Amino acid sequence: MHFVITFLIKGNKTLTSPDFSLKDIPGSGGRMDIMCRCLTSSLLVSHGIRKNIEVFLCLEGEPNPPRCIRVRGDQVRHLSPDERSTAIIIQKALRAYMPGKEMESTPGVFISDTTFSELVERFKERLIVLDENGEKLTSRIPFDDPCFVLGDHLGFSKKEEELLARAKLKISVSPLILHASHCIVLVLHRLDEMKL
Amino acid sequence: MHFVITFLIKGNKTLTSPDFSLKDIPGSGGRMDIMCRCLTSSLLVSHGIRKNIEVFLCLEGEPNPPRCIRVRGDQVRHLSPDERSTAIIIQKALRAYMPGKEMESTPGVFISDTTFSELVERFKERLIVLDENGEKLTSRIPFDDPCFVLGDHLGFSKKEEELLARAKLKISVSPLILHASHCIVLVLHRLDEMKL
Repeated sequence: MHFVITFLIKGNKTLTSPDFSLKDIPGSGGRMDIMCRCLTSSLLVSHGIRKNIEVFLCLEGEPNPPRCIRVRGDQVRHLSPDERSTAIIIQKALRAYMPGKEMESTPGVFISDTTFSELVERFKERLIVLDENGEKLTSRIPFDDPCFVLGDHLGFSKKEEELLARAKLKISVSPLILHASHCIVLVLHRLDEMKL
Repeated sequence: MHFVITFLIKGNKTLTSPDFSLKDIPGSGGRMDIMCRCLTSSLLVSHGIRKNIEVFLCLEGEPNPPRCIRVRGDQVRHLSPDERSTAIIIQKALRAYMPGKEMESTPGVFISDTTFSELVERFKERLIVLDENGEKLTSRIPFDDPCFVLGDHLGFSKKEEELLARAKLKISVSPLILHASHCIVLVLHRLDEMKL
């Protein structure tokens, strides 16, 4: 399957082991709550899943960075809108990690040590960075199969900024600075409207 | 303070006692997770709170309906984007309930037994219902201080639909049917853009 929309989401301090507490997902998980909400905002509509979307969560916190969790909209099962159940799916993925190959932990959810840089390289021809200083998103999105890149509350490092300088487009989705998961809602809305 | 934007959010089966489990907020709380996400979507931007917004969560599930939780953007403290900490704020409010008067449970958070109908009556001059069959939100919002009404995944009862028929406007924010919290993101985005 060729996915129509891809999201790369970077968690700068997000824990890369399954040893975080479900009683404190933000604190013990290095803001794992952001990854949970980004995943559900990318894939869920009311009573359904957006099958043409693939999401990569790039976790870069301690103790084992990097970990890449890939979720396929066409295959994922049991994804609920609440954070805790999504955190459990991520925890299972982190637990299933094996060096050197990509493992499927639950249906449609895969884990590997693919790096953020590798993904930026893979999608470089259709990369769109969400950036508060980017162009206002007024016109059509110029790719049929865009790959949107989002940082968490800590954004990107200087080295990553250089890497992302090759992006075809930098867009800003709001006059305010919003949470990453809310930016995803706005991007998808724009794409939904373009289809009409 | 006169709030510039009001949200009325109705939880048809949302528990009206504090006796739900933080390990199963959706199941034990009668989809309390929806209320949590609607509250944070209404009030939070990245690193900040929208002070000019007031949110009413109208809980109508067992065992003690109705319960109305009012949250003032200008006064609320310690509101984090994650669901569990928001559920704890709601739990504290439900625990602080006293018959016949509105109690402040934590800063900016109040609980009473105000009904959904009473609130619809109070805001009737500036009511906008979010409805999948409503008008597409293309033009300006015709009030300076709109009050948006949203149902949860179960929508509104027939009697409530009659009550809401008096609304000045019914709008649809997306060509798809989205989660209530995502609809709130889209409404606020439209208002943010109008201010420019």
